[in-house]
Amino acid sequence: MNTDVLQKRIRLPELREKVTSPEAAAEYIKDGMKVGMSGFTLAGSVKSVPHAIVKRAATHPLKISVVTGASLGNDVDSAMANAGIMSKRAPFQTDRTLRNAINRGEVMYVDNHLSETGEQLRKQQVKKVDVAILEAVSITENGEIIPTASVGNNEIFAETADKVIIELNLSYPLEMEGAHDIYCATHFPTAVPINIMKPSDRAGSIGIRIPPEKIAAIVITDEMDTPSQNLPPDAETAQIAGHLIEFFKNEIKQGRLTESLRPLQAGIGTIANAVMSGLKTGPFKHLTMYSEVMQDSTFELIDAGMMDFAAATAITLSDQKSREVFGNFAKYKDHILLRPQRISNHPEVVQRLGLITINTALEVDIYGHVNSTHVMGTHMMNGIGGSGDFTHNAHTAIFVTKSVAKDGLISSIVPMVPHVDHTEHDVDILVTEVGLADLRGLAPRERAQAIINNCVQGEYKTMLQEYVAEANLRGGQTPHVLEKALSWHQRLYETGSMKDEVKLTQVA
Amino acid sequence: MNTDVLQKRIRLPELREKVTSPEAAAEYIKDGMKVGMSGFTLAGSVKSVPHAIVKRAATHPLKISVVTGASLGNDVDSAMANAGIMSKRAPFQTDRTLRNAINRGEVMYVDNHLSETGEQLRKQQVKKVDVAILEAVSITENGEIIPTASVGNNEIFAETADKVIIELNLSYPLEMEGAHDIYCATHFPTAVPINIMKPSDRAGSIGIRIPPEKIAAIVITDEMDTPSQNLPPDAETAQIAGHLIEFFKNEIKQGRLTESLRPLQAGIGTIANAVMSGLKTGPFKHLTMYSEVMQDSTFELIDAGMMDFAAATAITLSDQKSREVFGNFAKYKDHILLRPQRISNHPEVVQRLGLITINTALEVDIYGHVNSTHVMGTHMMNGIGGSGDFTHNAHTAIFVTKSVAKDGLISSIVPMVPHVDHTEHDVDILVTEVGLADLRGLAPRERAQAIINNCVQGEYKTMLQEYVAEANLRGGQTPHVLEKALSWHQRLYETGSMKDEVKLTQVA
Repeated sequence: MNTDVLQKRIRLPELREKVTSPEAAAEYIKDGMKVGMSGFTLAGSVKSVPHAIVKRAATHPLKISVVTGASLGNDVDSAMANAGIMSKRAPFQTDRTLRNAINRGEVMYVDNHLSETGEQLRKQQVKKVDVAILEAVSITENGEIIPTASVGNNEIFAETADKVIIELNLSYPLEMEGAHDIYCATHFPTAVPINIMKPSDRAGSIGIRIPPEKIAAIVITDEMDTPSQNLPPDAETAQIAGHLIEFFKNEIKQGRLTESLRPLQAGIGTIANAVMSGLKTGPFKHLTMYSEVMQDSTFELIDAGMMDFAAATAITLSDQKSREVFGNFAKYKDHILLRPQRISNHPEVVQRLGLITINTALEVDIYGHVNSTHVMGTHMMNGIGGSGDFTHNAHTAIFVTKSVAKDGLISSIVPMVPHVDHTEHDVDILVTEVGLADLRGLAPRERAQAIINNCVQGEYKTMLQEYVAEANLRGGQTPHVLEKALSWHQRLYETGSMKDEVKLTQVA
Repeated sequence: MNTDVLQKRIRLPELREKVTSPEAAAEYIKDGMKVGMSGFTLAGSVKSVPHAIVKRAATHPLKISVVTGASLGNDVDSAMANAGIMSKRAPFQTDRTLRNAINRGEVMYVDNHLSETGEQLRKQQVKKVDVAILEAVSITENGEIIPTASVGNNEIFAETADKVIIELNLSYPLEMEGAHDIYCATHFPTAVPINIMKPSDRAGSIGIRIPPEKIAAIVITDEMDTPSQNLPPDAETAQIAGHLIEFFKNEIKQGRLTESLRPLQAGIGTIANAVMSGLKTGPFKHLTMYSEVMQDSTFELIDAGMMDFAAATAITLSDQKSREVFGNFAKYKDHILLRPQRISNHPEVVQRLGLITINTALEVDIYGHVNSTHVMGTHMMNGIGGSGDFTHNAHTAIFVTKSVAKDGLISSIVPMVPHVDHTEHDVDILVTEVGLADLRGLAPRERAQAIINNCVQGEYKTMLQEYVAEANLRGGQTPHVLEKALSWHQRLYETGSMKDEVKLTQVA
């Protein structure tokens, strides 16, 4: 390759000798190892060496445990799942092939809170990482590794692994140097406060510092991240955003918020992204973000002059937005910081900053317990991600969902969720396209009324009212008819619909 | 009363004029008000004015919303519940009469995380407190209010209420001055780190500082707190403690812990107290505690020379231990600090200190989801208390429970808990008298094997193995047979037992 490029991208001369092929790098990965890989919600994912590992597995016995930041892109998760080389995978994924392998019980999937995966490694509470494979923009003259579009757990993998393999990705602009804030939180027993009082505060260095001799191999790549496939905002996400804007306006009026709100966190995916995008129509100024991922909506708000600063651990964009942002990186560099996920999701900082958190629920029950992960209570969709990190510690914890799915065959509001990721203790506000339920300060029986009256409509509203009436006859703080509590899901399992066809027929 | 005592206990002269009768003080409480009352797990509970309020309600229409630290003692909760004067109650209670009123739906009970009740008041997200009624040991020359055996939410009630009524309790030794550390966490948007790096660090003042003119009335009392009724350790709690000691010994051997472990937190009640007491037989030194409540076991460990320091928000003791501790307070004063519950349970400090948390589960499911609160998923027992605050942020989150209840008619390990307070994401270790399941780094299917193999015995073990086998046929990350998932609870509801009598008969 071009020597000039190599000199600019690997500025510590001795490391240039480590440049090698993906196949050669893959030989460091042995059967039974635990491998840490960079990548967070498709961003900054390793792209080359894992495919070489898969190829190698065709001729060598190879089962490995893989730990990442979050979901990998560039077909890495699906290639590894297809090849059957993963015994274990943590945390978060969004890949259909891997998901199916998980749900067949072939891959043991550990669905950590994203702030905790690295921490468990540092506490030595889980098996250590043998080899880390990390994507980088460059390596500085001091040997600092500059991550790409995500930091994730990279600094902890680099710290705790025996060997580090670098995928040096030339497709990222070198101008990304300086866009990261790598603060390694101090650890028991000498932990000290994290020095972040607002999203833009710098606490660490621009790169990951490890002894250069730990770097075993460097592989050159130039593939971009897999773009996000978020659907564009639609009528219902616009309605959800509208309800939220009204809510915020009233909070401002009541003196509980200002026009800059609080630092915002928003979950990954179509709905949360569309809702954030919808905030553009609100009367807000000087917004900030402290989140795990910047999506298209983040840059739309920055471009609209409504958002001053965004800090996260990853930048996950559509193809179009990716070209805009990475093609004009200087324009955004002063408005963003990329941090380790241990810091972007850290309970201490989330509490101190007082975030407004907006996450997507798969389904919610009448008392406000949220299922974020398990279809029918059993089959993994993606994972809890950072939603627990943020929701537990939020100033105001908001969940959004469309009130129905699959053309109305599924109600997102159910009597009892068959899997709980967020308890009623942590859920402040629920918004559907129907309306908004403000659950703050309410007891469960009051929460049920607020949710059913504000967030549900049509036959499901009637069905839930009937359920509550029957449950109340049995009494309790959180009334239920146990033998009917999961009947909606059973009906869905048996008939493909939560609708009570018998009752509908009787009515008709 | 004795003028000399009054001068020692109310050292700001102008406040002595505020001394009045409970009946006169009760007149400040009007229909529809929200009243903040001191009291946390029976400790430092208001004792006099609430009974005068109840008396007054016989002749005046009176419905109030009551917010506390946690459970009140001295029959206050039962008297108010019996009189039907509470429209709403938050957070935590342990009173049978109140519990029944809650479960009949007569009292709207808001079961907050204990770190959040006061925070919601400060954020103005819930109705403000009109009048605070706070127990005190004394009021200093500077007008600082010195709390008694608990701090709870007192500093926030005092700060946010329009008026404050003091119950000056002469039964507490004046030597308690200096045993409190009243740090009022700074608030959005100017929050700064909490300056606590170890349990003994002082961050605040010895008393609560409010403008003296806010104090509307002072009532003199001399009744002690209701003693705790913890049962003594038994064979099963000793076995649980034994399993934990073995676990800790191995953690020390593996280099993950030292002989001082990490600061300990333990939940209120018989089992957690007995388990803590059982740690006396372990090879530990220089233990510390950072918890919400000091129980008999705390002082046993201090007396045994094994615990150097304990910080909490309340001291809740048996009658005997209470006489020992408050009768010899000087002996313990340098070993303890009482803090606001916002600080004792604060996510930031809990994370930084890296606590080992030990809380009691009502029941646990095979995947490690914990129900701490709801009998049969519907009827409130006590409340979540601080178990969420601590478990979310622990270094190692441990839950303890006996494997069966009611002479074996109820299994504490079930296929699916009908109410979730703590999710599998947050539960590291489960211990019953049968054994210990180390769930760290395990996927749900692995968790089920660890729990069933280590924590269950007899027919329930067989029944759970059969359930898992059937569930696995349906697949999923967290396999379940939805129509049978809550069948154990339904059987209990219908027959008074979780045992599968049909199957047992067949076997016999």
